[in-house]
Amino acid sequence: METVSTVGLTDKADLSLAYTPGVAEVCEAIAADPGLTRHYTWVPNTVAIVTDGTAVLGLGDIGPAAAMPVMEGKAVLFKQFGGVDGVPICLATTDVDEIIETVVRLAPSFGGINLEDISAPRCFEIEDRLKERLDIPVFHDDQHGTAVVTLAALTNALKITGRNAESTRVVISGAGAAGVAIAKILLEAGIKDLVVTDRKGVVSSDRHDLTPSKKALAELTADRTGRSGTLADAFAGADVYVGVSGGTVPEEVVATMADDAIIFAMANPNPEVHPDVAHRHARVVATGRSDFPNQINNVLAFPGIFRGAFDVHASAITEGMKVAAAQALADLVGDDVTEDLVIPSPFDPRVGPAVAAAVAAAARRDGVARI
Amino acid sequence: METVSTVGLTDKADLSLAYTPGVAEVCEAIAADPGLTRHYTWVPNTVAIVTDGTAVLGLGDIGPAAAMPVMEGKAVLFKQFGGVDGVPICLATTDVDEIIETVVRLAPSFGGINLEDISAPRCFEIEDRLKERLDIPVFHDDQHGTAVVTLAALTNALKITGRNAESTRVVISGAGAAGVAIAKILLEAGIKDLVVTDRKGVVSSDRHDLTPSKKALAELTADRTGRSGTLADAFAGADVYVGVSGGTVPEEVVATMADDAIIFAMANPNPEVHPDVAHRHARVVATGRSDFPNQINNVLAFPGIFRGAFDVHASAITEGMKVAAAQALADLVGDDVTEDLVIPSPFDPRVGPAVAAAVAAAARRDGVARI
Repeated sequence: METVSTVGLTDKADLSLAYTPGVAEVCEAIAADPGLTRHYTWVPNTVAIVTDGTAVLGLGDIGPAAAMPVMEGKAVLFKQFGGVDGVPICLATTDVDEIIETVVRLAPSFGGINLEDISAPRCFEIEDRLKERLDIPVFHDDQHGTAVVTLAALTNALKITGRNAESTRVVISGAGAAGVAIAKILLEAGIKDLVVTDRKGVVSSDRHDLTPSKKALAELTADRTGRSGTLADAFAGADVYVGVSGGTVPEEVVATMADDAIIFAMANPNPEVHPDVAHRHARVVATGRSDFPNQINNVLAFPGIFRGAFDVHASAITEGMKVAAAQALADLVGDDVTEDLVIPSPFDPRVGPAVAAAVAAAARRDGVARI
Repeated sequence: METVSTVGLTDKADLSLAYTPGVAEVCEAIAADPGLTRHYTWVPNTVAIVTDGTAVLGLGDIGPAAAMPVMEGKAVLFKQFGGVDGVPICLATTDVDEIIETVVRLAPSFGGINLEDISAPRCFEIEDRLKERLDIPVFHDDQHGTAVVTLAALTNALKITGRNAESTRVVISGAGAAGVAIAKILLEAGIKDLVVTDRKGVVSSDRHDLTPSKKALAELTADRTGRSGTLADAFAGADVYVGVSGGTVPEEVVATMADDAIIFAMANPNPEVHPDVAHRHARVVATGRSDFPNQINNVLAFPGIFRGAFDVHASAITEGMKVAAAQALADLVGDDVTEDLVIPSPFDPRVGPAVAAAVAAAARRDGVARI
């Protein structure tokens, strides 16, 4: 990646404008009216991609230096698919308070904050507290980007299998950042019967080993239907399986799902259920991989979400904006929907603009648009 | 300004390389050998341009948002003249400890730190403590960039007026960031008789109103020759005047300088001595403005200095590297030197490469080059 000037700079006159003395007029104008930042700087189109390197891809806590390639790749995707300028920020601290203070201090330099690859449950607190303190969009992509694309794919998978949200039973394996966010957006979208599992089985309040964040998750999910037990218990008769755990689900467990089951096995590079196995027991199969149909890829969401938020100078990214993004993605497939096409390709040129437009409209509805 | 990908991204294969799963291999390689950051990320070519907005141009403490246009302009110049990728970082804090902690936490993301427009004396402590804590170049351009270009211009001005450093008497008005740094580099370059003045006159230890940093400055400068008194006292018989104060020096004071005097009146946009006035009493006149000959412009220094430091993966920017940069700038004028040409034009294409080569060589001599 590189930074590039958007204006020419070839002679003394250009230099006098881009730098002293010309720049002083711009500074004075912004000092008098901070809103002019939007017109005269790159800030409103720029997102900080912030990590502490504690949960990088499936590699875990590899530190800030080794996390940089992911952040740089992400910045490239932000630009390519959303026209958003991304700046990778890899922090040399894993302390929650320090991360929050640092991002708050950086905030005048950026139009939005994209949190990335920060381990759970720290990522929840960091995102929540930053949202409280900042008046620019704060978005943890590992949670919400994944959740948006999952909801989009599931919307079309339910359609093709003739289901409605209210009567659909969902199992999510993985109670980390992605699992929690997917659970929340599916509840938001009308799913009623949903459990999340971790290594010890269903996250439910009858367990005595739950952390505070898992306890809260249990109350939102399994406790509502009184479900509990093992992963196998959860699978029996389930309509939908969403894997964001990185483990493996045995075929005999998969085989107990309902007819016309839906399996999203999203671990990378090794899906929780290999697509060949999944297809023996399910009608719609999606993965996180580009070499199988139906790739659940965050790149479908985050560039358009920030594009839409920036286009209306949004002060936050609301639940409504996320659901609108998912709906826009699902709608793009439209009548072309088949078992092997429940989600568009990242290279469909309609994706970014459609998501951005839906997100901008939702921002206006939710009262967070500032222009 | 914008960020741009340096690689194409047009199909699934590109996406798999730039992002998951391909990027995981790069992350693992860096986790195993952090030195590979240099080959596989943009970090080693990227400088954070850090300000707290407390001393922006001549505008003063206008805050981080209003400082952004200067930082963005600077980033553009870094790229244009040094091929260095600059990222503007405007901080929402003016607390010295908080600024230092924040920059230390950001450091894994950048190959170097350029401090900018931070008020004195805070800037001295911030730079010193960051240098101690970081193993990448830390450079306060308002100090050292100005000092390097001043030394370069003075080297040629001394040559043309037949002076040597040891017997030259210098007066610097302005005891802020630039004044202190110019004093230090001139001492480093062999000037022996040098005073710095502030609003109350010569900064000398017989005054009782000196801050700790001005006391240290007095000991380095006026105390060595026992000089003290008013600005007018300092001017009488002086060979060289360097203005970085923004005040005005009356013509009758200027008139008391030695024959063939040298006047660098660098305040912007209003020089301490107007060039028309200066020319009546001096042989060599320079300003900070582009519309007069001999513009003392930092852009002659900082892009090449960071280019040279980055080219050898330097762990710091030493005094030797700064003096080498000044010598390279002076040498570029060479035999073309006249009263109206003591410093090259920023648009002379030899400037960046010449400064970079001299700085890289000095880094090797000083033992801070890592490749």
